[in-house]
Amino acid sequence: MEMGIVGLGKMGGNMAERLIRRGHRIVGSDPNEAARQRLSALQGVAVSNVKDLIDRLEQTPKVVWSMVPAGEITDNVITEAAQHLRPGDIVIDGGNSRYTDSQRHYAFLKEKGIRFLDAGTSGGIWGLQEGYCLMVGGDPDTFQAVEPLLRDLAPEGGLLHTGPAGSGHYVKMVHNGIEYALMQAYAEGFEILKASPYPNLDLEAICNLWQHGSVVRSWLLELAARAFHQDPNLEKIEGYVEDSGEGRWTVMESIEHAVPAPVIALSLYMRFRSRQPDSFSAKVLAALRNQFGGHPVHLADKHD
Amino acid sequence: MEMGIVGLGKMGGNMAERLIRRGHRIVGSDPNEAARQRLSALQGVAVSNVKDLIDRLEQTPKVVWSMVPAGEITDNVITEAAQHLRPGDIVIDGGNSRYTDSQRHYAFLKEKGIRFLDAGTSGGIWGLQEGYCLMVGGDPDTFQAVEPLLRDLAPEGGLLHTGPAGSGHYVKMVHNGIEYALMQAYAEGFEILKASPYPNLDLEAICNLWQHGSVVRSWLLELAARAFHQDPNLEKIEGYVEDSGEGRWTVMESIEHAVPAPVIALSLYMRFRSRQPDSFSAKVLAALRNQFGGHPVHLADKHD
Amino acid sequence: MEMGIVGLGKMGGNMAERLIRRGHRIVGSDPNEAARQRLSALQGVAVSNVKDLIDRLEQTPKVVWSMVPAGEITDNVITEAAQHLRPGDIVIDGGNSRYTDSQRHYAFLKEKGIRFLDAGTSGGIWGLQEGYCLMVGGDPDTFQAVEPLLRDLAPEGGLLHTGPAGSGHYVKMVHNGIEYALMQAYAEGFEILKASPYPNLDLEAICNLWQHGSVVRSWLLELAARAFHQDPNLEKIEGYVEDSGEGRWTVMESIEHAVPAPVIALSLYMRFRSRQPDSFSAKVLAALRNQFGGHPVHLADKHD
Amino acid sequence: MEMGIVGLGKMGGNMAERLIRRGHRIVGSDPNEAARQRLSALQGVAVSNVKDLIDRLEQTPKVVWSMVPAGEITDNVITEAAQHLRPGDIVIDGGNSRYTDSQRHYAFLKEKGIRFLDAGTSGGIWGLQEGYCLMVGGDPDTFQAVEPLLRDLAPEGGLLHTGPAGSGHYVKMVHNGIEYALMQAYAEGFEILKASPYPNLDLEAICNLWQHGSVVRSWLLELAARAFHQDPNLEKIEGYVEDSGEGRWTVMESIEHAVPAPVIALSLYMRFRSRQPDSFSAKVLAALRNQFGGHPVHLADKHD
Repeated sequence: MEMGIVGLGKMGGNMAERLIRRGHRIVGSDPNEAARQRLSALQGVAVSNVKDLIDRLEQTPKVVWSMVPAGEITDNVITEAAQHLRPGDIVIDGGNSRYTDSQRHYAFLKEKGIRFLDAGTSGGIWGLQEGYCLMVGGDPDTFQAVEPLLRDLAPEGGLLHTGPAGSGHYVKMVHNGIEYALMQAYAEGFEILKASPYPNLDLEAICNLWQHGSVVRSWLLELAARAFHQDPNLEKIEGYVEDSGEGRWTVMESIEHAVPAPVIALSLYMRFRSRQPDSFSAKVLAALRNQFGGHPVHLADKHD
Repeated sequence: MEMGIVGLGKMGGNMAERLIRRGHRIVGSDPNEAARQRLSALQGVAVSNVKDLIDRLEQTPKVVWSMVPAGEITDNVITEAAQHLRPGDIVIDGGNSRYTDSQRHYAFLKEKGIRFLDAGTSGGIWGLQEGYCLMVGGDPDTFQAVEPLLRDLAPEGGLLHTGPAGSGHYVKMVHNGIEYALMQAYAEGFEILKASPYPNLDLEAICNLWQHGSVVRSWLLELAARAFHQDPNLEKIEGYVEDSGEGRWTVMESIEHAVPAPVIALSLYMRFRSRQPDSFSAKVLAALRNQFGGHPVHLADKHD
Repeated sequence: MEMGIVGLGKMGGNMAERLIRRGHRIVGSDPNEAARQRLSALQGVAVSNVKDLIDRLEQTPKVVWSMVPAGEITDNVITEAAQHLRPGDIVIDGGNSRYTDSQRHYAFLKEKGIRFLDAGTSGGIWGLQEGYCLMVGGDPDTFQAVEPLLRDLAPEGGLLHTGPAGSGHYVKMVHNGIEYALMQAYAEGFEILKASPYPNLDLEAICNLWQHGSVVRSWLLELAARAFHQDPNLEKIEGYVEDSGEGRWTVMESIEHAVPAPVIALSLYMRFRSRQPDSFSAKVLAALRNQFGGHPVHLADKHD
Repeated sequence: MEMGIVGLGKMGGNMAERLIRRGHRIVGSDPNEAARQRLSALQGVAVSNVKDLIDRLEQTPKVVWSMVPAGEITDNVITEAAQHLRPGDIVIDGGNSRYTDSQRHYAFLKEKGIRFLDAGTSGGIWGLQEGYCLMVGGDPDTFQAVEPLLRDLAPEGGLLHTGPAGSGHYVKMVHNGIEYALMQAYAEGFEILKASPYPNLDLEAICNLWQHGSVVRSWLLELAARAFHQDPNLEKIEGYVEDSGEGRWTVMESIEHAVPAPVIALSLYMRFRSRQPDSFSAKVLAALRNQFGGHPVHLADKHD
């Protein structure tokens, strides 16, 4: 088949490569020249904007996969694609959009007769080789129309039509919320091991051990083993942890539906905390202890 | 080789079977007759108490694996074994003892010249087929003396000498703390999916999907798929969740070493909460809201 | 002075009474006849809708205080008031609106030349006697125009112009987030005391004790003493705890600004949990324990 | 009456002064000369060790108040006092001992006929003027024997005989657990206000406002107002927060009795986190994100 991919970054570029290897014709757009050159080298068609991308697609319906940051940038891609596509054409948002945005995009495109799928995508940089786990929301016939492309992006078993528009990104959002908490679970465990009365525990060996027969075996644990192999005490990196939208949205969604989600919320908060050089909350605590108990405070200037 | 197993329950009985299948001579003790009959049927030697078990062991050194509940019962097995074993013999505690107990048991037996290993064991009812992940603390020569037995209990890669006495149970304790939090992570995610605006999400299909290429793939997720396959909405079971000692000890250990472990602690607390038909805390909240805001309370008797 | 109060419920009715006692002329509207009769008995002017209320106000500028539930109902009151007020008149939203709504209301009314204040209000049913703590956002001159009314609603020291439009409701939102966590702090403490090895601890006496000289003395603790006085073991009420919008918004706001707010979030989640007869999360945990360890589950039907 | 006070630090020294002002004879011991000089200047009898202190007490029964750090130091004071006191004499532990230690001290002294009270004490540096809130465990007749002294230490209403030995320290332990969570509640709220879209919120003014009529008014909030008055943005102090034993014990006690105590536990954990220059957990998270997503990490060396 044929597909246009808007955004040839880490994810989009690898997806193009994976699909080309499996015999598909790929037109890709990216403002970055290196990204376009990579695609050209793979015999894909590289352009620099959405209009050109749509012009260069030859099959009907035209299929455009958006793989750009969620929010305004995705909004712009969809608005622009809508100007150049025709009724029956298909837009797939493979990014990490909020599911309510995807519901909105679906309705906006539907008015013009353009079809829309939201494809939650997991797999990171490993997806090129192992395939991308795809959670796809939208109308069943739209899903079927592009299923061969989706099957070649995904590993066997890694493709699901989750339900109506938005449900793909909803499931992906919760996936990421779970991911945050799984990561935090391991992270706390390793910190306790690190602080244990047994100073010589070999964390890499313990990861590898647990991968064989234990209840906690998982892909994340396999990655932890790799990380400890490269840097046994993680001395080279700082404990500064970004978060993307999905973790936040998962917590907000839990509040919306009155679902207690303490470990997902705490996983998010500990990431926030990791990025604070000092904590205003903690300053308040220190100030209060000083006020009622005369407990000494650490002066801030000693760190300047 | 040869090994005595004290306790032929779900874990000990399966271990006996696994070792017999691999050609070892097993003497097992259990007060329960059905457990003994199972062992006899497997051509093991079944007795009803620790003394008889030790008498029936024929090789030197004698090796006794204790697979009984942690705490007083394990204490008793070790005390009794110490009375009948000779210097050089080996006791292995495969149960879920607190690591400080294992340090104590090591020292107690060492005074009598008896050797001790603490073997944290993971794998549950799947261990019979897949092998038990073993985290073993104690002296290196003791470990080496029984390594062939341990290798046959474990899957390939699933055996590690973690360090000095107690370290095996320490690593197992943290393993279980992580396990609690991993489980809670998935549980919260599934509850959010269940409460989502998409009422027809197929949780079993989502588990199976995520197993292929997603970041959250794991053995626990595979088990979740099985659970949802058997009971898609978990209607048949109550949300009543026990905890065993390791989760509690992990939290206490985190406090001992001033390690923040919010998701492990919360996983434990949510289990506690699951077992409360009503919550005194929540009653206090309801009473306070009534006091300051005149907000109505639900009367308790309506539930009687 | 003179003020119109839309909504004569628990809060609005008491406010009318407090202001009348201090010599103000009050016109109040409420669809409920009992509420209107109470106002009439106090020599206030009672009407049944916003239009009539505005018609009956005699001074210039007209001042309308909205004391109705946040969200759509407040929106409607403001829309309707805008139709009948004139440039220079003043609307004050004393309800628990989200601060972004108040920013919107401010802008909407400003287009028509109508002035707006958002007045976060704390004090509950005690406000009638003790006064209402008022956190007021909006333009300084608008604040000054109604300051005599606000001073008579508040206790001495209990009135603050917090800043621009929305800031009053913002401060009130955070106030309530703190309130949730303070309440949960006491609630957990009392549950631990209740579960202690000292079965005869007198919780009311402990509350009263702590009110004298201890670090945890507070108004909420005084209310807890009253609650325990009325029902020492809180046997008569169920631990079912509602939440209103502010707690949720505070958590969402913490996420928006990447501020770790674990105890506020957990206070909210424990309220959610208090309202669940069973927990789907907990069912997932029980199912997983059964899958990997063969641990027995509680069957749901035994509770039917 | 007469009392010996072992330990003339911030707490013990002030208690001596308070009791002397109320007409009691005080013998105090402290190894620190400045502390002894302060007592002498108040007309108290200052000595340097427990034996001398007991020798200088003139009334029967002799009453010794221990006001030293919990744990080994308190153990030593009690052991030494036991050597010099006679049956019927009274030891009061006013420190922050773990309640199980106090149960042990009670039993140890009882064997010698010496009476023991555990007096949980709150009030900090304010106790000198305002009185100390006292939660006292032990036998009723022992309590009565020293009640006049206790009444003069406490403010009116601030003295309670909580129950048997250990209960005083138990109630104090939970008091401090609550205190941690109350402080964290305010701290999170102020951090959210600080991060709000309203950059000019006056935190001191808000504290003072809330003290008048709001639901969150409390003594801690009064102290917060003082802290913001001295340093409006808390720029001079670092967010480094110590914890003492009681918070930890409260969490452990909650685990012991299977009571969910999320906000108390999180308050403790956030203090732990405040003391970590970097977080190993966070390093694990950053490393995992890098492994699966190729997300860049912050290199640690840039901070060296």
